[in-house]
Amino acid sequence: FLEESAPKALRETVEDARKRDTLAGDFPYPRWMDKDDYKDALKPLQLELMKLQHWLTTSGARVVVVFEGRDTAGKGGAINRIADVMSHRILKVQALPKPTDREAREWYFQRYVTRLPAGGEMVLFDRSWYNRAIVEDVFGFCTPAQRAAFFDQLPAFENLLVQDGIHFIKIWLNVSRAEQLRRLLAREGDPMKHWKLSGIDVKGLGKWDSYTHAIAETFERSHTAAAPWTVIRSEDKYRARLAVLQHILGQIPYEGKSSIDPPDPAICGTPALWQPELWDDGT
Amino acid sequence: FLEESAPKALRETVEDARKRDTLAGDFPYPRWMDKDDYKDALKPLQLELMKLQHWLTTSGARVVVVFEGRDTAGKGGAINRIADVMSHRILKVQALPKPTDREAREWYFQRYVTRLPAGGEMVLFDRSWYNRAIVEDVFGFCTPAQRAAFFDQLPAFENLLVQDGIHFIKIWLNVSRAEQLRRLLAREGDPMKHWKLSGIDVKGLGKWDSYTHAIAETFERSHTAAAPWTVIRSEDKYRARLAVLQHILGQIPYEGKSSIDPPDPAICGTPALWQPELWDDGT
Amino acid sequence: FLEESAPKALRETVEDARKRDTLAGDFPYPRWMDKDDYKDALKPLQLELMKLQHWLTTSGARVVVVFEGRDTAGKGGAINRIADVMSHRILKVQALPKPTDREAREWYFQRYVTRLPAGGEMVLFDRSWYNRAIVEDVFGFCTPAQRAAFFDQLPAFENLLVQDGIHFIKIWLNVSRAEQLRRLLAREGDPMKHWKLSGIDVKGLGKWDSYTHAIAETFERSHTAAAPWTVIRSEDKYRARLAVLQHILGQIPYEGKSSIDPPDPAICGTPALWQPELWDDGT
Amino acid sequence: FLEESAPKALRETVEDARKRDTLAGDFPYPRWMDKDDYKDALKPLQLELMKLQHWLTTSGARVVVVFEGRDTAGKGGAINRIADVMSHRILKVQALPKPTDREAREWYFQRYVTRLPAGGEMVLFDRSWYNRAIVEDVFGFCTPAQRAAFFDQLPAFENLLVQDGIHFIKIWLNVSRAEQLRRLLAREGDPMKHWKLSGIDVKGLGKWDSYTHAIAETFERSHTAAAPWTVIRSEDKYRARLAVLQHILGQIPYEGKSSIDPPDPAICGTPALWQPELWDDGT
Ligand SMILES: Nc1ncnc2c1ncn2[C@@H]1O[C@H](COP(=O)(O)OP(=O)(O)O)[C@@H](O)[C@H]1O
Ligand SMILES: Nc1ncnc2c1ncn2[C@@H]1O[C@H](COP(=O)(O)OP(=O)(O)O)[C@@H](O)[C@H]1O
Ligand SMILES: Nc1ncnc2c1ncn2[C@@H]1O[C@H](COP(=O)(O)OP(=O)(O)O)[C@@H](O)[C@H]1O
Ligand SMILES: Nc1ncnc2c1ncn2[C@@H]1O[C@H](COP(=O)(O)O)[C@@H](O)[C@H]1O
Repeated sequence: FLEESAPKALRETVEDARKRDTLAGDFPYPRWMDKDDYKDALKPLQLELMKLQHWLTTSGARVVVVFEGRDTAGKGGAINRIADVMSHRILKVQALPKPTDREAREWYFQRYVTRLPAGGEMVLFDRSWYNRAIVEDVFGFCTPAQRAAFFDQLPAFENLLVQDGIHFIKIWLNVSRAEQLRRLLAREGDPMKHWKLSGIDVKGLGKWDSYTHAIAETFERSHTAAAPWTVIRSEDKYRARLAVLQHILGQIPYEGKSSIDPPDPAICGTPALWQPELWDDGT
Repeated sequence: FLEESAPKALRETVEDARKRDTLAGDFPYPRWMDKDDYKDALKPLQLELMKLQHWLTTSGARVVVVFEGRDTAGKGGAINRIADVMSHRILKVQALPKPTDREAREWYFQRYVTRLPAGGEMVLFDRSWYNRAIVEDVFGFCTPAQRAAFFDQLPAFENLLVQDGIHFIKIWLNVSRAEQLRRLLAREGDPMKHWKLSGIDVKGLGKWDSYTHAIAETFERSHTAAAPWTVIRSEDKYRARLAVLQHILGQIPYEGKSSIDPPDPAICGTPALWQPELWDDGT
Repeated sequence: FLEESAPKALRETVEDARKRDTLAGDFPYPRWMDKDDYKDALKPLQLELMKLQHWLTTSGARVVVVFEGRDTAGKGGAINRIADVMSHRILKVQALPKPTDREAREWYFQRYVTRLPAGGEMVLFDRSWYNRAIVEDVFGFCTPAQRAAFFDQLPAFENLLVQDGIHFIKIWLNVSRAEQLRRLLAREGDPMKHWKLSGIDVKGLGKWDSYTHAIAETFERSHTAAAPWTVIRSEDKYRARLAVLQHILGQIPYEGKSSIDPPDPAICGTPALWQPELWDDGT
Repeated sequence: FLEESAPKALRETVEDARKRDTLAGDFPYPRWMDKDDYKDALKPLQLELMKLQHWLTTSGARVVVVFEGRDTAGKGGAINRIADVMSHRILKVQALPKPTDREAREWYFQRYVTRLPAGGEMVLFDRSWYNRAIVEDVFGFCTPAQRAAFFDQLPAFENLLVQDGIHFIKIWLNVSRAEQLRRLLAREGDPMKHWKLSGIDVKGLGKWDSYTHAIAETFERSHTAAAPWTVIRSEDKYRARLAVLQHILGQIPYEGKSSIDPPDPAICGTPALWQPELWDDGT
């Protein structure tokens, strides 16, 4: 598939990546977490999710979690671990498609506001309004003026949500370039994942640096006191998923909370954890 | 009708009002505008509305006008003079009913955001989010904490709309107490208007002072540089409607604008024009 | 304007129309209704509307009225006479723009279902799902297969609404070719109406016969027992508006109904009143 | 929990169920499916789901699957196995809460129509409009007249969807009384599932027979040629989930379909498979 749609330039990038052996990189652990250890650790966290769900119902609280990250970063998988145990009547996953022609003429945040939770609900955004800052920028789907307007309005918008009492969490799942390539190549090989490869994935691959640039600016402009980013390294999916759960549970004051481990600081932290130079091309 | 539902207290208020002969009051003109003069003045303004409509379509601009005011202030009539000449496909009137149980658990502004115009549209809100500041306060439909939260969020919310390029206008149609009484009594007499009398009208009448207090606070908290209020005295409906049109047309930079008279400063101005002491009970 | 955008063919049609002096035609009255007579007749009907509105609120009934007709047939004006006296919180006018790209991929009736009234509301559709049968057909906005599917589903769809207890009324405002030309020419002349001329108006003019054909088929397929059409000749706007009100009021069993005149059978009736041969080109 | 909220009657039912040793019952297999066998069988089905997803995107087809069944029947789990592998941008899960006060005054099907898929989407309803036929009936949330109206409109409504080309599938997950009791008791014991026990679960338990009655009537009235029910026995969750996937994949003509096993006829079939007498109390 990669061969068909981007025979040269891309293939070269991939081979190049392999030659420079970027696979291991700076990841703080030498090997993936063991599956059984993961399952053991997951169980009590999912039990906490059940308590969180119960508390949502009784307290009428609202939770919004934004999941962002490059393609293959594992947004969907992390979201599914939460969706698996919670009721579809309480937890909603919102993955908006590209704006309709009408939505494109509305206030940019409008279609997201429509999907905010009512009391007693939790909404997970699989990509979010940050599309304008990143994907739309990289692919030229918005004008620079639209993006500038977005950044101007962003802090006020997010402040409103927080001020209104919504528990608001922003998670950036971070994947290294090497790992992204590995996953895309795996998709190519695995008949199952093959079908997951979308045109935008492949195109995105060739735009690593534009992404990097857009992400850096996004952190700079939107990592605010009221609505800070949490960066979670997701090269190891298991560790990342645990950290996602630990972080979310840690942020929300649900009733009956057991003491749970905080997320591993080696893979979960502020945007400082996101160090472009380490994954950068060097070019 | 008045007799049935509020036999004593209210009737007394009305009689009292009559005794003190509050009818004329401080209105700057001794008599209503002549109907023919009104029609002559209306015509060119409605022509300008047609140009405004044309410009909306070609420019993709968005306009929001909030109409607020006490019962009988003439919001509906002023809105209808605009709706009469514009296309239903471009001009939308939004008059939201009381929030559903679900909406009551959402971010307060959410259901209004859903109704904002797309490019090329104009939305007139017949009552608006200011319900929380006034009606809901007077009738106890919200808690003081909810109202405080509303005022805290309001400037940021309206700023976002303005910053996004929406032409945003807030009009307060102001009716004196005497004139309000006169209109309600007229409704009672006129079989046609009789059906317009709602329970809340009658109850509202007895709450003049609570309204006054809520309005004063609203002006204080929400008359901002980005989103200022325009107060239009509406004792004389014709003069008020002309002023509404003149004000709206004056604020919007549509193409092909003819020079039109500015609204009459004797009946259209800042909240300073709203002088509670003049209509106040004196208590 | 006509000259600019369709210099030849159209102008010829217009001149042609003038030459053949089609203006008077077969209209059953020699002259327009007198304005004062109209106003006198309108008043009691609007009073009935107030009762209807009151009844909506107390009974929780639902009313849907579909307004269809060629351009310039006077749909907007008839709607506004109702909207003028009813509350924006009870009466909603729905004038949907062309479908968004997403709506185009949905069940055709979906976006209309979304706008159906809740109990206590009345919705007037300024054009409706019948777009697919007529405008979309004439302008090629839908495929023949889509139109066939529309007609197949239509009776079942409308039956569902009626079966559910919605008071459902379909009104076809009918304008003769001569009168349509006259009105478009008037728009051209009148600076006020000039701005109302849309591209589709002018293009529509040249498609009189395609329209006629589409309309004939529409009546044939959709004039059902459960949801019959009422045709109202609208060459004379005043008479048409009165007939619209009389017809609607006659159909709805609101409380306190006074005896009102039935609509004039010379201008209001079944689709038999629509006689294409009389206005037809003859070609 | 069971003890607290329904100390006697319910406990007795449970003990009773144990005494009569209804656990095994008539289930066609003596033991649960082996977990590893399940995983092996699941994998190729999920691969097929990826192809189905790809085909949705390229063909613009629409799929609706209704999941119904008593509490603990495993609707959520079956849905999650699908959601796990599909994109949140293509697959939507709809689990509507109880109607808002406004929705309660609308056409009953209206809020479901709003959630139908656009082209390229698949919607899974976790409970659906069948609430009116079953849950609302059992708990008295609707009047008999409303339920009768529902059944009257149902075939026409579902026909419209099918006629419009939506791939429409209705699955009834069937759990025996003994197994339902076992699962509720397990929830009571398992701290994790404990939080899943809702008041309605417990109340529902005492209403087994009312449910049975409502279900029988539902099958009778809604198992139509255009929109037939598929009953899947879900005592064994693994077998049930496989059958769900096999059934859905079997019904949809996606491109590149591999030959997959049909669902096991011992646990998946028409409503004939649902035999109330076997699980019935006998009372
Ligand atoms: N033309 C466009 N304009 C704006 N956003 C777009 C456009 N095309 C795609 N997107 C957005 O880009 C994001 C990535 O798309 P895609 O890769 O298809 O989704 P996924 O995250 O499910 O893999 C989505 O959020 C989508 O809404
Ligand atoms: N591309 C399109 N596809 C389908 N419907 C369309 C399209 N363009 C316009 N329409 C419909 O045609 C009708 C007539 O449009 P227009 O003449 O602009 O409106 P009006 O009735 O307000 O004069 C509207 O209902 C509109 O939704
Ligand atoms: N008062 C009510 N009126 C109508 N439907 C209701 C009412 N209360 C609950 N329901 C419906 O009953 C169903 C079962 O509710 P519940 O057991 O809470 O959901 P779940 O299926 O997630 O366990 C839901 O579909 C819900 O919408
Ligand atoms: N219970 C309520 N809570 C909040 N707003 C209400 C309530 N009842 C009425 N309103 C609002 O008060 C305004 C006047 O209502 P009405 O007189 O019914 O038109 C409308 O904007 C309603 O939305």
